[in-house]
Parts: sequence; structure tokens; C-alpha cells
Amino acid sequence: MINKAAENNAKMVILPEIFFYPYEINKLKKIADKNNETLNKLKTKAQEKNIYLCTGSIAEKEGTNTYNTSYLINPEGEIILKYSKCHLFDVNLPKLQVKESDTFQKGSILKTVNTELGKIGIIICYDIRFPEITRKLALDGIDILLVPAAFNTVTGPAHWHITFRTRAVENQIFIAAASPARNKKSAYSTYGHSMFIDPWGRILKQAGTGRSIIYCIIDPEVQYKTRARLPLLKHRRTDLY
Amino acid sequence: MINKAAENNAKMVILPEIFFYPYEINKLKKIADKNNETLNKLKTKAQEKNIYLCTGSIAEKEGTNTYNTSYLINPEGEIILKYSKCHLFDVNLPKLQVKESDTFQKGSILKTVNTELGKIGIIICYDIRFPEITRKLALDGIDILLVPAAFNTVTGPAHWHITFRTRAVENQIFIAAASPARNKKSAYSTYGHSMFIDPWGRILKQAGTGRSIIYCIIDPEVQYKTRARLPLLKHRRTDLY
Repeated sequence: MINKAAENNAKMVILPEIFFYPYEINKLKKIADKNNETLNKLKTKAQEKNIYLCTGSIAEKEGTNTYNTSYLINPEGEIILKYSKCHLFDVNLPKLQVKESDTFQKGSILKTVNTELGKIGIIICYDIRFPEITRKLALDGIDILLVPAAFNTVTGPAHWHITFRTRAVENQIFIAAASPARNKKSAYSTYGHSMFIDPWGRILKQAGTGRSIIYCIIDPEVQYKTRARLPLLKHRRTDLY
Repeated sequence: MINKAAENNAKMVILPEIFFYPYEINKLKKIADKNNETLNKLKTKAQEKNIYLCTGSIAEKEGTNTYNTSYLINPEGEIILKYSKCHLFDVNLPKLQVKESDTFQKGSILKTVNTELGKIGIIICYDIRFPEITRKLALDGIDILLVPAAFNTVTGPAHWHITFRTRAVENQIFIAAASPARNKKSAYSTYGHSMFIDPWGRILKQAGTGRSIIYCIIDPEVQYKTRARLPLLKHRRTDLY
């Protein structure tokens, strides 16, 4: 799929959360990438195809700890951004019990990177529910937020679209949300619906629940105009909060 | 309409933003409530009908300054909460130029109040776009956020539902959004769509664009269960933001 996207002239490719294995939380410690095998393959691929590649997320061992980590690799095959999920999904919903903190350690580092495509930040899935983390990246100047994510069929229909769209609107940024396809054999029923959202909250492109590649052209002019017309970031009351 | 709502056993009645006159910003300084005439009528009405009454908002003079202010009055006719709009709507959208700061001063006080119906906060319209202000009230423990608001036919279709619903979801609170009806004779075309939203983001009741009263029963159990199942406020990373 990366090959195909690159052949279709994608300059950046974004993979979903835990893209290399179904999101079955109890198994992830065992299959975590210990020797950067998956990461190294993706670095080679980015260089080979001359693309920016967001690795979605990978369960990754650091000593005895496991993190849910995403990288942005540049067309030279170099890591230019690393992010480990900061908010872990520990929930007890009807028909959905998940405790990510049994498997993962929390990340604590939040960075951004300038690229020729715009300034970029990464968060992962559950992070999107916390307005503070996206705001922090927006105040650091990001134009595009990459969000590998795997909402499910309980939280997805209720919250996926409104939450991602509101984050784009309130921070006046582009958001790329990349979800795994729904796998009927998996215990965790992924919501799907990968999408691109613009700074006015419009859904520019959207996948269904199956396997697919969606493409989107990011027009910086839209962000510029949105911010000039509705200057939300300038209207923040930093004296109050 | 307050009489009718009270006769239908409303315990609290919420009026919309600038409810006593069309939202025509240039005229509001002249017609601002100088002697608390409107406010005093509403205090009497709350006592007479034995209801909590959120006064929507009133353009109000304090010396030479004008504020966009909302009050919560208790069934004894006493003011128990006062809020003046903190974020002023200065925008230059296609077909919509508004500069509230030519008319209003910004408020700077954010409080909450305990009532037998739950802990309550008030913000006004444009404030809802800034996640920080609702978050601050949520961390102060509110159960119900009252939002007199007058979105318009440019921003309303794009952002009204997603923004209010996301604030309810991320803070796990009830929100009552009260809008004036659309007035075809007014230069400012109000969006309407007053609504009640629960802590899971469900729209419990919604008005159309015309004049109407909507009723809603607030079930505290919904908030309790939502917070127990998806403990968002406990998962905040106060070490990071």
C-alpha cells in the first residue's frame, strides 16, 4: 500500500495505530518490535520511495518498558519526529473493557518538526480527547496534525467525527486521522473512517470501514484564510487560563 | 414563554444571548440596560414562578462600559451567578463582519455555583470555541454548563453541533445551549437550534430555527456512569500541560 501511494505521487504517507498487527492489547507486549525491525524496514521504504512516512504506531520495547510509538521519517530515511502515546486508554465501557496501561508506559515528550509540507505534530488515538495536548502543539505552530488512531464501534459512532473535527476547528489546523480497517476476526472492532479534515472542520476525504488508501491535497491557503477571518488563536485569553 | 415553561413544571429556565432585542451589535450600546430594569423584571419573575432563571444575556452598562452579561437567579429572586462574556466575536468572514469589541468590554470573572440541580457554570456563545474556559469550569466541578449563544447561518451549520457536543464529551457535563430564533428581518441571521446535550455527547432535545421552548430532564446518573466508564478527567496529564 505504501508502494501504491508513492506511485500515485503521495509526498507523505500515514499509517494507522498499531498498523502491523491487530489491536489486541494483551498480545502486544509479546510481539513488540524489540530490534527496530519494523522501524528499519519503514526507514528503508521511505528512502526508496522518496516520501515522508508516518509509521502509524508500533508497540516498541525500550528495556523492559513497552511504548505505543509513532515516527515521522523523511525522504532520506531519517527519523525527524518521535512520539509515544501520552494518554493510555483505560476504560470500562459496556461491551468494551480495555486497559492499555497493563501493556504500555505513558510517553512524556511532545515535539513538532518543520517540513517542506508544513510544521507537523503527532498524537495517537485517545490523546485526541484531551484538548490540551493538541492545543500545545498548535501553539507551537503546527499546520498539520497526524493522528494514527483505532477508535472502536462503541466510541467511534459517538465521538470520532465530532472530536477530530472540533480539534481542527478550534486550532485551525489540518488533521489526518489514520485508522486500521475493521477486522471481523479481531476481538477489537475498529471503527475505521480514516479522514482528512481542514482548518474549517470540513472532512476533505474519508475512508469507510474496509482497507483503503485515501488521498488529500493540503492547501495552506485555507489555513491562512481561516485564521485571518476567524482569529481564534489570537483571541485566547491567556490572562484567564 | 417563561410563564409557560414554569407552568409545565420547569425548575430552571434558560434564555438566549441578547434575548431582549435582536442581535444587532451597533444598536446595543444605546439600548443597554442602564438601570437593571430588565434584570429586575427577571428577578421578580423567577421569584413569582419559583424557578431558577438564567437570564440569557443582556447588554449592560457599568459606568461608561458595556458588557454582554448573563445571570443565574434562584427561586428566591436572588442573583447567585454573574458572568460577562470573556471572548468577544471580532470576525471578518465572507458575508459576515462583526466586531463585538467596538461595543463590549471583555469580562474577566469565571465562577460556578452549587444548586439543588447540580453545580452550574455559564459562558456565552463565542466562548464555547475556546476549550480552556469550559475545561476550567469542569475542573471546578460543574455538572451543567449554560450557554446563551447566537451563532449565525455562516458559523452555525459548520460548527454549532460539533463544538457544543465535543465540549460536553471532553468534560463529561450536560450543556444547555440557548439561541434566539431566526429573525428574517434582522441583519444578523441567527442559526437557532437550541439544544440540550448529555455527557456522552448525545443531543437530548433540539429546537429548529423558529421560536420554541424545549424541555429536558437532566439525569445525574448519566454523568456518573459516563465518568466511571471513560474516566477522561482522571486521565489528564497535568504533568504535561
